[in-house]
Amino acid sequence: MSPWKAAQPGDDAGAIDTPALVLDLDAFERNLQRMADALRGTKVRLRAHAKSHKCPEIAKRQVALGAVGICCQKVSEAAVFADAGIADILVTNQVMGEAKLRRLAPLARKARIGVLVDDALQVQPLAAAAQAHDVTLDVYVEVDVGAHRCGVAPGEAAARLARDIAAAPGLRFAGLQCYHGPAQHLRTPVERKAAIDSACDAATRSHKAIEACGIAVERITGAGTGSFVNERDSGVFDEIQAGSYIFLDRDYGDNTRGPNDVAFEHALFVRTTVMSRATDAFAIVDAGLKASSVDSGMPTVWQRPDLRYAKAADEHGVIATADAGALALGDVLHLVPGHCDPTVNLYDELVCVRAGRVEALWPIAARGALL
Amino acid sequence: MSPWKAAQPGDDAGAIDTPALVLDLDAFERNLQRMADALRGTKVRLRAHAKSHKCPEIAKRQVALGAVGICCQKVSEAAVFADAGIADILVTNQVMGEAKLRRLAPLARKARIGVLVDDALQVQPLAAAAQAHDVTLDVYVEVDVGAHRCGVAPGEAAARLARDIAAAPGLRFAGLQCYHGPAQHLRTPVERKAAIDSACDAATRSHKAIEACGIAVERITGAGTGSFVNERDSGVFDEIQAGSYIFLDRDYGDNTRGPNDVAFEHALFVRTTVMSRATDAFAIVDAGLKASSVDSGMPTVWQRPDLRYAKAADEHGVIATADAGALALGDVLHLVPGHCDPTVNLYDELVCVRAGRVEALWPIAARGALL
Repeated sequence: MSPWKAAQPGDDAGAIDTPALVLDLDAFERNLQRMADALRGTKVRLRAHAKSHKCPEIAKRQVALGAVGICCQKVSEAAVFADAGIADILVTNQVMGEAKLRRLAPLARKARIGVLVDDALQVQPLAAAAQAHDVTLDVYVEVDVGAHRCGVAPGEAAARLARDIAAAPGLRFAGLQCYHGPAQHLRTPVERKAAIDSACDAATRSHKAIEACGIAVERITGAGTGSFVNERDSGVFDEIQAGSYIFLDRDYGDNTRGPNDVAFEHALFVRTTVMSRATDAFAIVDAGLKASSVDSGMPTVWQRPDLRYAKAADEHGVIATADAGALALGDVLHLVPGHCDPTVNLYDELVCVRAGRVEALWPIAARGALL
Repeated sequence: MSPWKAAQPGDDAGAIDTPALVLDLDAFERNLQRMADALRGTKVRLRAHAKSHKCPEIAKRQVALGAVGICCQKVSEAAVFADAGIADILVTNQVMGEAKLRRLAPLARKARIGVLVDDALQVQPLAAAAQAHDVTLDVYVEVDVGAHRCGVAPGEAAARLARDIAAAPGLRFAGLQCYHGPAQHLRTPVERKAAIDSACDAATRSHKAIEACGIAVERITGAGTGSFVNERDSGVFDEIQAGSYIFLDRDYGDNTRGPNDVAFEHALFVRTTVMSRATDAFAIVDAGLKASSVDSGMPTVWQRPDLRYAKAADEHGVIATADAGALALGDVLHLVPGHCDPTVNLYDELVCVRAGRVEALWPIAARGALL
């Protein structure tokens, strides 16, 4: 990590060194509130996805506004959030291998811990770990509702797995994980609704098959920032797992909003400096692909429609400028990252800014927590 | 970071938790030696690029085998390596802004510190910082030799800047930075040679223009893993900045080797576990794009030509399998990352393996050093 920080609390925001990951606290808090408002009066609760932020300070604020807890993707992430006092954590992933199960099970003494399975072979090791540590784990069946990644086929296969879980000591069958990843970035509301209608059908078939075995399905969880209004209104889901809504990256910003969708706003920025202006046609900034992940495409330049972030190298970003006078050496720009999750994972802290001042540095405590 | 490590020294290599960044020490040491051999008997010295590894343990081994020191891209990286005792460090980048110059200049009390300029406006602030800290900085003119990123035009523009540097108190004009980035991944040796021939022409024109001003050009530095045999043999360059040769990622492995090129081998791997086998057509591993950067394309599966890493999500990798029986839940694979630099930057340590055992964990001390 850098031996020094980009800024300190109390600094003028204009003095933040670059590249730095800047959180606009006002915009962030409005996003938190918009999500709380969007779920108020429904039977659907929020389990905020902490894979996006990896930051206990953010998780605490999500819980304070009504989230039941968080979900995350890795056992080591769960450990960070359990240590920080988050009381209800779902690892929305399959957990394979003794090394991981030995770490997962003891967390259930600090927090309610859930985990997914999509194969009968995963059940016995989970049960053994739970018993060895004298804890109970919530176990969800992951159903493939259209993502075609992890997850059993809807219906009978889900029911067989639910029976296995329900019969296993140390495990509690907690419900169905029905997340449709690709639906999140379908660009139009009509496409997203169609995908989630289909996911709901798969979830309902699985639900019915499991109830037909005499096993209750307590919860159907899933959804993300792109699609969640559909799951919320479905009558099928009762928990949503949105994460990126707090930041709204460029890729989510590229979705077309329908009348039902919630108007989240960009709150996460990569602050960067022009370090080279050797030619008129472009400027080079100090934020490349180690500062803003390009897996979902290039960042955009905030409030500068005249500029285009055209290309990223490791430590260089190429900004195309139609007007040679548009940028000078030393100018500072703010980028809206293409994809917030892997971008946040590049930094050790969020530089939290309000009214032109650095209000706080929030550690990204689970940054790099891959295990 | 993860609250625990993927392994400890002395562990059986088969017990390393996943995802983990594994360094095959035998292959790594062969790569180090091959580079030393390739430069032996020439007038060309190695300044190893530490942006690829960010690891003082590796830098020390490069210096022990003859490297003059390292280069890096960020002031905060330079600080990490200066603290680790590396005595000669070149920041192969423009350094803009008071905050950075205040950190850069004092490093010159611990190590020889070089930096690039490509604009007259960068010279005075560098000189002021050097004087304020009572140090001398080596300053190189970056010349655009074909990369069209940073760098002044070859010839007169380079000479004007060299004169500015030579006249500035606290600065020493140290030579020319002539790195041709895009040449590194031109796939055939003929293309790479043509690009470097052109770079040499630009370097030579700049050299002559500067000497015509009565200023000596002490050094012409540049080159990378893909092209360096051409710079080595050019009679123009006397220092090369290769970095990736120690690891050889998939992208460099995709270059066609000519008779002159050095046969580096893959030494860096992302160890990963199959965590879902819900369908016959693919398997899901626990290493996604937060474990292996996909900016230069997908990783390959080491020694498994029957498998294809088809797609990466944040924490999931999709492995396409023609044969449904080819992979079972819990199987471990080793990925050759598409691009080593940003992949290394995702981890806190290298798990160094030899003869089936974990020999050491090497901290990636400059991981996330963006400032």
